Amino acid sequence: MKLEKLVGDRFKERPADCVIDSHALMVKGGYIKYMANGIYSSYMPLKRITKKIEQIIREEMDKIDGQEVSFPVVMPASLWDESGRYESIGDELLRFTDRNNAKMVLGMTHEEAAVHLVREYAQTYAKYPFMIYQIQTKFRDEARPRAGLIRVREFTMKDAYSFHTSQEDLEQYYEKCHKAYERIFARAGIPEVISVKSDSGMMGGSISHEFMLLTPVGEDSIAICEECDFRANMEAADYISDIARDASSDPLEKVHTPNIHTIEDICEFFGDETKNSCKAVVYQKNMDDSYVVIFIRGDLEINETKLVNYLGEQVHPAVITQECGLNAGYIGPVNLNINGAHTVLFDKSLEGRNNLSCGANENEYHFKGLDMERDVPDAQYHDFAKVHDGSICPKCGKKKIKISRGIEVGNIFQLGTKYTKSMKMTYVDQDGNIQTPIMGCYGIGVGRLAASVCEAHHDEYGPIWPKSIAPWQVHLCAVRPDDEEVKKFADDLYEKLQAANVEVIYDDRRVSAGVMFADADLLGVPLRVTVSPRNMKQGVVEITSRDKTLKEQVALTDAQAAIMKYL
Amino acid sequence: MKLEKLVGDRFKERPADCVIDSHALMVKGGYIKYMANGIYSSYMPLKRITKKIEQIIREEMDKIDGQEVSFPVVMPASLWDESGRYESIGDELLRFTDRNNAKMVLGMTHEEAAVHLVREYAQTYAKYPFMIYQIQTKFRDEARPRAGLIRVREFTMKDAYSFHTSQEDLEQYYEKCHKAYERIFARAGIPEVISVKSDSGMMGGSISHEFMLLTPVGEDSIAICEECDFRANMEAADYISDIARDASSDPLEKVHTPNIHTIEDICEFFGDETKNSCKAVVYQKNMDDSYVVIFIRGDLEINETKLVNYLGEQVHPAVITQECGLNAGYIGPVNLNINGAHTVLFDKSLEGRNNLSCGANENEYHFKGLDMERDVPDAQYHDFAKVHDGSICPKCGKKKIKISRGIEVGNIFQLGTKYTKSMKMTYVDQDGNIQTPIMGCYGIGVGRLAASVCEAHHDEYGPIWPKSIAPWQVHLCAVRPDDEEVKKFADDLYEKLQAANVEVIYDDRRVSAGVMFADADLLGVPLRVTVSPRNMKQGVVEITSRDKTLKEQVALTDAQAAIMKYL
Repeated sequence: MKLEKLVGDRFKERPADCVIDSHALMVKGGYIKYMANGIYSSYMPLKRITKKIEQIIREEMDKIDGQEVSFPVVMPASLWDESGRYESIGDELLRFTDRNNAKMVLGMTHEEAAVHLVREYAQTYAKYPFMIYQIQTKFRDEARPRAGLIRVREFTMKDAYSFHTSQEDLEQYYEKCHKAYERIFARAGIPEVISVKSDSGMMGGSISHEFMLLTPVGEDSIAICEECDFRANMEAADYISDIARDASSDPLEKVHTPNIHTIEDICEFFGDETKNSCKAVVYQKNMDDSYVVIFIRGDLEINETKLVNYLGEQVHPAVITQECGLNAGYIGPVNLNINGAHTVLFDKSLEGRNNLSCGANENEYHFKGLDMERDVPDAQYHDFAKVHDGSICPKCGKKKIKISRGIEVGNIFQLGTKYTKSMKMTYVDQDGNIQTPIMGCYGIGVGRLAASVCEAHHDEYGPIWPKSIAPWQVHLCAVRPDDEEVKKFADDLYEKLQAANVEVIYDDRRVSAGVMFADADLLGVPLRVTVSPRNMKQGVVEITSRDKTLKEQVALTDAQAAIMKYL
Repeated sequence: MKLEKLVGDRFKERPADCVIDSHALMVKGGYIKYMANGIYSSYMPLKRITKKIEQIIREEMDKIDGQEVSFPVVMPASLWDESGRYESIGDELLRFTDRNNAKMVLGMTHEEAAVHLVREYAQTYAKYPFMIYQIQTKFRDEARPRAGLIRVREFTMKDAYSFHTSQEDLEQYYEKCHKAYERIFARAGIPEVISVKSDSGMMGGSISHEFMLLTPVGEDSIAICEECDFRANMEAADYISDIARDASSDPLEKVHTPNIHTIEDICEFFGDETKNSCKAVVYQKNMDDSYVVIFIRGDLEINETKLVNYLGEQVHPAVITQECGLNAGYIGPVNLNINGAHTVLFDKSLEGRNNLSCGANENEYHFKGLDMERDVPDAQYHDFAKVHDGSICPKCGKKKIKISRGIEVGNIFQLGTKYTKSMKMTYVDQDGNIQTPIMGCYGIGVGRLAASVCEAHHDEYGPIWPKSIAPWQVHLCAVRPDDEEVKKFADDLYEKLQAANVEVIYDDRRVSAGVMFADADLLGVPLRVTVSPRNMKQGVVEITSRDKTLKEQVALTDAQAAIMKYL
């Protein structure tokens, strides 16, 4: 391929609207073109990269007995009604009607389609286990697409679905797939990706893992123990409280606290720390605006994803009205009065605690001496608290949790029977009994993976693509192609390398060496070979690796051999 | 791959709802699964076929300097507003709004996206010519999906777009692409595909060709000259009339014709042939229901596509009301009265004719002696007539037109400046002048091509896939795998063939030879190798080609070599 003919512009300046480097470099380097919010076209260099990534994924999926199939992008709503997700998923599921007013959706994931494809086929135990996968376009109507290809609305994804007759079999396969994922990320050039325990969210199921590329620009937060191997998504990291109950409980005492509203103010007023108070956080459910009051230790925050998962519903911060009965600034668990439907929850951090301060549900009054066991005897405790730097590790018990940022490049889920049960997929087991198969599902976003590799491997001048996914292997520059000798040697080398099946991008434009090298940096090809009048005089070509580990002059006659050796 | 683990059911019976063989065989053979009207999932065998077809297409597109890119499936309506197609295309363009109420469409074709991708890049003549293409999912909300993968709503398509600075350059490239298409169809196993001149329809532009697989089950009609090389889509085949004007014209005479309504009745009444009458055919425009009256020679039919293309609007057969002023059964070109907006058109078959009969626009009256030149002096003539078997060839002039049926497996268009002009794409030419580039576009439906190959090459038992796109190359049957010798030899051969990179589907199920062979026929793999106790005793395996040209016994030791030789 001649660079002169490569469609797409490369820019000198960093685009103003790009926050992260991979986004900026993909725009600057002529990889992507913005069409609409979260929707991009790809130019040839990115297409070549994603095709290679897809091929790596395909090979690894085939190795673990995956069968490549294909599901539709547009699906009938009726299929999503069967699983219940037509109702339960929010606006990110794009719903529309076709010309005959039939309700349709755009696939953002394909559990329903997978069950639909195999439920007549897999009716006896002998057909199990099996795994099907596809590499296909998906659409998720994200509220806030951002960061270039990291969070888009339309994307290409490999999604795989496995079916099993026992939890043990699922777990074995899950482990195999976990290993395949490690191979995929390693082959794609980011072996540093780690897997973290995660929350399953709208996918359902119990155990799941996210594969994370740690980077400060990641949009996910991960709790990592600096002592042991505990690693979890924030939602999946239990908060462990180590504050013991005081030996004796003071009596509950109502105190006049005029003009005191915040938890910090009240603690200062009582001369105590926030961790010895009981704070109320109030939400409303999106569905019916009913109130959700959560009590939590005064120094902790609510992890809203934990809350949403517990409720199985979306919530938003509450607007506290006169009519609702709540006394903003004075809400506490004793004498709590809420008009209308409502939910009251208690975080584990309060379990067993005593001698706490809290609101008295009365204007300008607080309690002190609250004893949860004595004063709120019916409270049920769940984990809603956000872990933070220095939290106690749920695994080793040391205060060594550190919060890191990461990009999720893949995920795997043990789905259980959520979809097979709701969609009435069954099989007959060896004893003639009717059973429900158990599913796993396994996703990798192709474009996001490409962007993550760029994020992990770039410098200020451009991406540094690993050989395995680079758009080309050799970037051949003929500096001063008007020099006959240069042109002849470079043309010849171009032909020879192509004949040897090396992917070469050949720059024989009449531009300065500076422009050529800047473009080469933006295309990020592993090996740059420079033919120039000065080099020719010395009887050499210059071979430079994009990652700067190699820079050498090679005799003209050895050029091809040296290139082949490096590759 | 072991057949036992292949996901998908194969059926004995032909599905009741399948009209054409390729549809029936793809359902019977476990290739596709119906999800909704015109929407299918694909099982592994079809996925393997389409991937091979895609690779053939990719190689041929790359050979003519195509650059593979990718466009979004979901696009903003604003882009389609630029070209005017957001308004002009009917219900087959699926329109919807996203969560922010932005108007979006599902891509059914990507001319707008192609211009969007390159219009900033290609602003100087030196960047031309170039071609970009993608292989991607498309959605067209067809009113009547049918025939399995032949006419679906969601499909995978290769669409290519070329950009040029002159008509000559476009024509040269168009010719190159025409040849690439011939190679693609030949490599995919249907070299018998012919190209026919076609009408450009909603794509715009002037010259275009469709690539047709001739088959009685095709949904397109094609006019082919049995004398010369003229071949055209029905819409693109001009009707040539050879009836000369009579030497002298009779006077126009109004005749009382009670209870006579049809053209046949009136001709019988006058004792004349229908070709000597002037018939009226009435439509209404879909947009405003205004009337469109077309006069045509009495023995001819209207080709509605020719009419729609001429009008640039959709029409439907008219409902003739009392108010409109038309006299159903008595409509003629003289004294014609239509209330409200209307269009009157004349087919070329009437040009210059005289001594015709026609309606007199009065109940129970007709004219005879109509002379178009004398009585309808302002008439403008266009070609709206449907060609038929025995029509005059517009090229060689012989009455040798034959109407055949075909499946359109690809098309190529010289688009001209329809999209570049409306979307304001320009470049600066060598003289510094601003010019509008000229486009071509080139499509192939991947799934339809697979179905067409099946349609062209099958027997009553299943598809006969050409080697180039067959899901596997060898179908290995171990008849009686409980026989140790059989199992051992077959297992061994399976391993050896796989090690030699031969794609093998291996059937070692404990089922009858009959079931095995029926499944092998349905999978249509080029070579079937049968290992059985009887064969083993004779020291041979049986090698049979799916197309029945080969059936031989080969010594066990020669088996692998014989298979490799055949492949």
